[in-house]
Amino acid sequence: VAAPPDGLATRVRAGDARAIARAISQIEDADSAGSGGAALIGALFPHTGRAYLVGITGVPGGGKSTLVDQLITTIRGTGLKVAVLAVDPTSPFSGGAVLGDRVRMNRHAADPGVFVRSMATRGHLGGLARTTADAALVMDAAGFDVVLIETVGVGQDEVEVAQTADATVVVLVPGTGDDVQAMKAGIMEIADVFVANKADREGIDRLVQSIEAALSLQPVVDGGWIPPVLKTEATTGHGVPELWQTLCRFRDRSETLRAERCHARAHARVRALAGELLFTRLEQALPHGAFAQAAADVVARRRDPYRAAQDLAAYVPDSSGSGAA
Amino acid sequence: VAAPPDGLATRVRAGDARAIARAISQIEDADSAGSGGAALIGALFPHTGRAYLVGITGVPGGGKSTLVDQLITTIRGTGLKVAVLAVDPTSPFSGGAVLGDRVRMNRHAADPGVFVRSMATRGHLGGLARTTADAALVMDAAGFDVVLIETVGVGQDEVEVAQTADATVVVLVPGTGDDVQAMKAGIMEIADVFVANKADREGIDRLVQSIEAALSLQPVVDGGWIPPVLKTEATTGHGVPELWQTLCRFRDRSETLRAERCHARAHARVRALAGELLFTRLEQALPHGAFAQAAADVVARRRDPYRAAQDLAAYVPDSSGSGAA
Repeated sequence: VAAPPDGLATRVRAGDARAIARAISQIEDADSAGSGGAALIGALFPHTGRAYLVGITGVPGGGKSTLVDQLITTIRGTGLKVAVLAVDPTSPFSGGAVLGDRVRMNRHAADPGVFVRSMATRGHLGGLARTTADAALVMDAAGFDVVLIETVGVGQDEVEVAQTADATVVVLVPGTGDDVQAMKAGIMEIADVFVANKADREGIDRLVQSIEAALSLQPVVDGGWIPPVLKTEATTGHGVPELWQTLCRFRDRSETLRAERCHARAHARVRALAGELLFTRLEQALPHGAFAQAAADVVARRRDPYRAAQDLAAYVPDSSGSGAA
Repeated sequence: VAAPPDGLATRVRAGDARAIARAISQIEDADSAGSGGAALIGALFPHTGRAYLVGITGVPGGGKSTLVDQLITTIRGTGLKVAVLAVDPTSPFSGGAVLGDRVRMNRHAADPGVFVRSMATRGHLGGLARTTADAALVMDAAGFDVVLIETVGVGQDEVEVAQTADATVVVLVPGTGDDVQAMKAGIMEIADVFVANKADREGIDRLVQSIEAALSLQPVVDGGWIPPVLKTEATTGHGVPELWQTLCRFRDRSETLRAERCHARAHARVRALAGELLFTRLEQALPHGAFAQAAADVVARRRDPYRAAQDLAAYVPDSSGSGAA
């Protein structure tokens, strides 16, 4: 493992907020598995594994930001340090999570036990899940006890991001058809805990029932943990301490189950990174313009996409460095 | 290119509905770039490129299925043959698109100029986009003039699926905050045509204005095509002929723009397939249990994920077949 540039890893481990911010920026800027971020993670990784990573997902407008705010307060009340990673696969139009971020920053600005960071990375293959996982490792190494990973939507991106966490909370609200949408997006099956937020609204009981009905159709996986459905009112904080208690109970479930989850996550992560590395090798091995030429052949129907891809993949040299084509 | 199994490609090209269905099933079952689907696509590919592929996306409940139904009627009225690919990254709970599919099947069952097919594939890296693109090629080769690719949600999956099309229609409805959600998911930037559906509802003008406001913030790309915003009432069919006319106008825009889009699409496709191929080679080259061992090392903090991925990637042999480690 390469030495961390200018002691950044050391300062991260000391909990230096500016170093943490810089480390995460470095991870965001790293655009492939082989770049600078890898050395930093290599230096920090032996000092990680202590934080509890909690993913919080659900449709926009579900009150997730307010819920996260309340969770911060609850968790801080127990003396634990909390970091928040607000992940927004933002569109080029919107300002992304920046506004919500600032609001929260202001609220907890005076508390050194809270660190909030937005990430708006999007784009290429698995990029968001990778940067999220690495940023969480930075926060872990910096000594935060809990890392809340908040996402904005209910797409495959969110599923992948949520899967980088130890526990996943899915937030739904009554009367919006969210439950249906969450099911469509495959969000239901990744939930360890459901939150029916805005519990003061009409339709809350129907929402809880529909979630429970959906759960009853699902085979009981993960050795018998049945995701509880909790009611909260994020605006008042009602139900939030119970949510934290439930998350602690989930964390304290059998060692076997936790180990299985950790293993599956590491497995997926290593697979994805190995795939990215191979692709980077291919890009480096190809002659200039090879992808463009292949695309032109496909457009002109001279080669089909599979044939073109096979021809390109043949350029990857072996590990001893000898070329091939 | 390998010969197509038992003349399936020939029967697809003759427009045989059962052969088309079987070909698409074969594509769905193919789980990597190197499998049976590639030979079939290789045989069909020279006979593709004629159909107009139109992606239709937007939030669930936006009336997309009804709109697609009306579009079928409109397009059939001009004498063109239409195929529909209803893509649903379904959850394990839901029955996916099967119900809507059947309804439409019944309605157009007597018309040999219409072919409707659902695909509920989900899972691994780019799998949905690949199977969608291949299924559309099958329909193209079978002689359908228009292929409507309908997706259910607004996540990254849908963005990728939509990008396999020649034109993308984004459907929004008033009063649901859909516009905000579509922006979050990056759907806005992929739209060639916007449809504000349920035009009889309150808030339709506000919806149109908010889309146009968002568009005005976007740099004019693709050589000056500014996505029009059309109002429709899918239930009555109001506005649907105008939608089809707009899509024809989009298709007939400058040859240069169309060529650019085609090239970018082929480029993305070849990149993704080459990545899949390399990963398949890695899986074949690795000793049994190598991924599991790497994951165990990561969990135990013996290796960091990047180091583990590098160690694994080193197993990919060169194209001449010599091993490496």
